[in-house]
Formats: sequence, C-alpha cells, structure tokens
Amino acid sequence: MKLNSANIETRLDTLYDAVVIGGGMGGLSAAIYLARYGLKCLVIEKGRGRSIWMQETRNYLGIDPDTPGCNIVSHGTKQAVGWGADHLRAFVEKVTDEGETFAIDIKVGKKSSKYYTLRSKYVIAATGVMDVLPRLDDMQNVYNYAGYTLHVCMICDGFDMWDQKAVLIAGKEAQINAAFVLNWFTPYISVLTDGKFSVSAAMKAKLAEHGYPLYESPIARFEGENHKMSGVTLADGTLVEATTGLISMGSIYHNHYLKEIDGLTWDGENLVTNDMTQTTHERIFALGDLKQGLNQVTIAVADGTKAATQIWRNIRRASEPRKWEANIEKETIKRAAVAAR
Amino acid sequence: MKLNSANIETRLDTLYDAVVIGGGMGGLSAAIYLARYGLKCLVIEKGRGRSIWMQETRNYLGIDPDTPGCNIVSHGTKQAVGWGADHLRAFVEKVTDEGETFAIDIKVGKKSSKYYTLRSKYVIAATGVMDVLPRLDDMQNVYNYAGYTLHVCMICDGFDMWDQKAVLIAGKEAQINAAFVLNWFTPYISVLTDGKFSVSAAMKAKLAEHGYPLYESPIARFEGENHKMSGVTLADGTLVEATTGLISMGSIYHNHYLKEIDGLTWDGENLVTNDMTQTTHERIFALGDLKQGLNQVTIAVADGTKAATQIWRNIRRASEPRKWEANIEKETIKRAAVAAR
Repeated sequence: MKLNSANIETRLDTLYDAVVIGGGMGGLSAAIYLARYGLKCLVIEKGRGRSIWMQETRNYLGIDPDTPGCNIVSHGTKQAVGWGADHLRAFVEKVTDEGETFAIDIKVGKKSSKYYTLRSKYVIAATGVMDVLPRLDDMQNVYNYAGYTLHVCMICDGFDMWDQKAVLIAGKEAQINAAFVLNWFTPYISVLTDGKFSVSAAMKAKLAEHGYPLYESPIARFEGENHKMSGVTLADGTLVEATTGLISMGSIYHNHYLKEIDGLTWDGENLVTNDMTQTTHERIFALGDLKQGLNQVTIAVADGTKAATQIWRNIRRASEPRKWEANIEKETIKRAAVAAR
Repeated sequence: MKLNSANIETRLDTLYDAVVIGGGMGGLSAAIYLARYGLKCLVIEKGRGRSIWMQETRNYLGIDPDTPGCNIVSHGTKQAVGWGADHLRAFVEKVTDEGETFAIDIKVGKKSSKYYTLRSKYVIAATGVMDVLPRLDDMQNVYNYAGYTLHVCMICDGFDMWDQKAVLIAGKEAQINAAFVLNWFTPYISVLTDGKFSVSAAMKAKLAEHGYPLYESPIARFEGENHKMSGVTLADGTLVEATTGLISMGSIYHNHYLKEIDGLTWDGENLVTNDMTQTTHERIFALGDLKQGLNQVTIAVADGTKAATQIWRNIRRASEPRKWEANIEKETIKRAAVAAR
C-alpha cells in the first residue's frame, strides 16, 4: 500500500523480505516481481529521479515513443502497489548491515521531517544517477531544452539528432571524446567547454582534423522556443547555431547510503554485480545505472526481474516446503487401517 | 517497411547490417534499437510465436497486466517499421556463414511458396521456444484453458495460482520436480503424468510425503467454462478438481537454422552468450528464451538492446568517422592563405 507519514508507523515492526531503494524503472520492475512472488517488499522513492526527466521514451518495446518517463513511473507504481508492494516517498539516509537484516534509516517529509528505521532481509539499490547539466544563472533556460532537443543520452536520442547541427557540451577534456561517437549520427558538431576547462593541443588538433569547431567561452543562454533549440549564445557574444545538443558532463551517483557497507565491490561509482544483479555482498543487489553496463530503461527493467527472482529463490530455498496436510493425514490413517487388518 | 511476396524482390541486392530472425519481444526490441542506430535491418517472423499465446502480460513495467502478448507484438512491429526497420512474414530455412556475410534462405507464403536468399553482416537469433502442451484428440479443449488458467510459466503466473487447487502436468519424471517449487504458491497440487511415463518409487514416496496425489491415467479432457478450469477428467473416469494448472512438459526450441553453423556453443538447446548476448560466433547474437537464463519478456527486451548496441559498436568502429567537411576546407583555405602571405 501507499505509505506516508500518517501510516508509516504501522510498518516499524515489519521485517521486509526486500526494500527497494529507488522507485524508477528498475526499482518498480523489481517491486512488481517481488510482490508477485508473494514477498513482502517496500519501494522507497525520493522523487525527481532521472526517468521522470525523460520527456519521451523512444526505445522501450510496447510503449508509445512520446510517452514521458513520469507516466511509466506512475503507472508502474500503481502496478506494484496493486500487486501488494508498499511504496513510500522518503529519503534514505543510511543503510546498516546488521548481519541477518539491514536497518534502513529514512527521513520522511522535507519540512518538519520525521525520522524512522525500517528493516529488511535484502536491499535492492536502484537509485541510479542524475546527469550533470550546465549551471546557468537561469536554470529554467536549461530545463526548457533538456530532455527535449538537448539530450543527455546518445543511445536514447542520437537518432533524433540525425545530420542536425549539434552542440556537444563537455565538462572536462575526456568528455569531448563523445564527439567521435556522436559523429555516427551527425558530423555537424560544435564543441563547447562552457569555459570550465582548458583543452590540450592534441585534442584541438583532433577536433580541427574532424572539422568540429571548439568554443571555449562560457555559455550565456540557450536560444529557441517551444523546447526547440536554435542555438547557444556564449558570454563572448558568439551565437553557435544548433538545433540539438548533447550534454556530456558525467553523472551524479545516488549511492551515498551504501558507502559504509563492507563487502561491496566498486568500479568507480558503479557497483560490480553478477549476472543476476547480485553485488559481492550476497544480500545487496544493484540495478540499472547504478551497476556496470548500459544505462537504458530496458536494462533496468530486466535487472529488476533478475534481482527479484534471485531473492525469491534464496528465500524459497531457505523455507520449509508447503505440504498438502489433509492428504498426508488421510494417507497416515489409511496406512494405520491397513496395519490394523 | 513491411515486406511481402509482392515487394521482397526489391531487397534481394540489399546487404543488411543485421537480420533478426524472430519477431517476438526480443527481436522487435533489437529492431527498434538497430533502426534507431541508423542500421539497415530486417525482422523475419514466421508467426505463432510464444508471446502471441500470452493472454495477459503480468510483469512488464508500464503495460496494463491484462494486455495480450499479441498486442505488444503488433505495437512493437509498428514501432520498428516506423523507425525504418524492414519486417517480413516468412520462414527461415537455413543460415549459411559466408565468412563476411550470412546467406539466409527463406520461404515466403505457406501455399505456392516462393524461395529467396537474403544477406546480412550479422544475425540475431530471436526465435525462442514453444511450450509442449498435452496432446488431446480435441486440441481446442487444451487451447480453451492454456494461457488463461492453465499456465506454462511459474514465474509469470504462480501468483495467480495462489492457494488454489492446481494440476501439475509433467512430460517425464524430472519435470515433476516443478511441484516442489510450485508449492511456494500453492500446496494443493495434483500431479498428472497423462499416462505417458512411469514414476519411480522414490518420486512416489516424495510426492506422498508432501501430500501431492499422483494420477497416472491419461487426460481425457479439461473441464470448466469461459477459459476457467474446474478440473481434469482422466481416461479412467476420475475427476481431478483444480481451478488452475501448470504444464511442465518442456520446450521446443526453434533453432534448426543454426545447427550447421560452426563456432556456436550450445548448452543443451540454449545458446551460450556473453553479457552483450553475443554467441561464441562473433557475428551471431542470441536473445531471450533461445539463450541461457530466465525466459521473461523483460529479459528478452533488454537482450534486444544489448545485441543491437554491440552490433552498432562493431559497425561504427569499423567505419570511417564522419567529418564536417566544410570546416576542414575552410581551415585548409585559411592555412593556404596564411602560407601565401
């Protein structure tokens, strides 16, 4: 059921089979499966995840391509709760490994917050990443284009940039290399540093050799209307024409709550997992963008299936088998009757 | 575009980047991605795959749980064709590895069939499996319940069998072991052999110990109405009461067309793949039920993402980078002008 500050106290004595931290695509898929395995599970969602920034969902089988991510999230939340999962809007402050269980410290409510501790046998980390965006004084100007014609994922949206004039906005030199992949989709690439770093002579030569101009002045504002970019004005007054853009500035990982847990293996900020999304801590699973691999909705959704299935297998194998007691009694009676003859 | 016997000849000189064999969940997901990577691809679908037997799609995030599989398939086919994929209803007779390319022999049309050979750089095998069903004289009686209350996948539908009286129909002794997993969902299990095999004393003892009755007479017919089972009548006249059932009779693998290809590694009838669904033949990928792992829609859909992405990477890395020629010329002119000073 939907939990909130008014009813969360009914769950303080519950030992969940699994708590899913993060209610995006991967977390909700896990919750649907967990609930349908008859396991007691809770999704904790802080809000404002990456998937709700998606204005369109291009590549997910069976969904109209113009479906916003937030629609899938709200549909999936209803699905999961409908099958019996709990769902709570809260922020996870810390997860403590207690040996057989985890203690999950949460904060509910942004104003006059309340603090609780919940418990579970397994934790599924599905908190993903957020994309770093250019910081302008007027962030609304960024939000007007980000997710529409100013993209953060080439695999998701490269097709929609086909042969258009594009800006590539990098946060450091290594991120400029995205230009040499983006050129599969369009060769008309202007590279912007937003004045944040200096570019080596070698990289300048490589860009020049490809014909991709480099602009090192800070970004003043994005130009366009109705979410459609027409260009970028720089602080030095230059107007860079572009009808689309790719932001290649890296990601912020939501994984603070796992940093003090022993037994996890990290690859940078990504968790290392096996083919069932189990981390090197046997009671912690990691899904989607938080683990190694492609950052795609399809992958996160499949990851949810795998984590929930492995947790079900573990719990099932550790449980007593359910017998059909009535039949066993009858058999016993029958055998007793035969013996009495 | 949609291909058929009237326009297939326009494609006889095409070298596809990838041909996807099988237009179910995995194959269509691959095609959507391939098309959006700008790759030339064709889906060949023979019809009557496992997913179109699914009456409801319970566990797929974002889709209403009562959505039939065939709706997702027809929606996905439109998606893929909309992004630029070709789609053809045909039967693949044979795939021949020609070194750099594959020759794919197909049969179009069941009556007055025509035979063609198509070519591609990569093959994606997405032909999946079909479930073995009990063979009755009146197969319509089986189809009236199969996919509704008579299930073939415990992960998909175990939840919907919760604490109901259930028949487990096995095709051989080892398949009876499904009872000891199904008992997570319900302990009221009657095991039917359909008179097809004899059961060892050890298995009989194990079933008796769990209280699960064993019926060794052939199945005469399924009872019920409106796709809702009420029981199974056996040839010896016994009525086994059950409102649901699980068929555990194994799968038929659609992989005949790969059997003569060198370099593949098989695990029984499943293909062994790496974490990008690439088989041990570097130009053949295998998705969903055809490879090792869980047979779930979510997994097949993610597999399509992985196969298409790896093929795109391979083709992209082997291609000349696209340059912004106009800028290079300008630079050349500028350098020439400076040199001329």
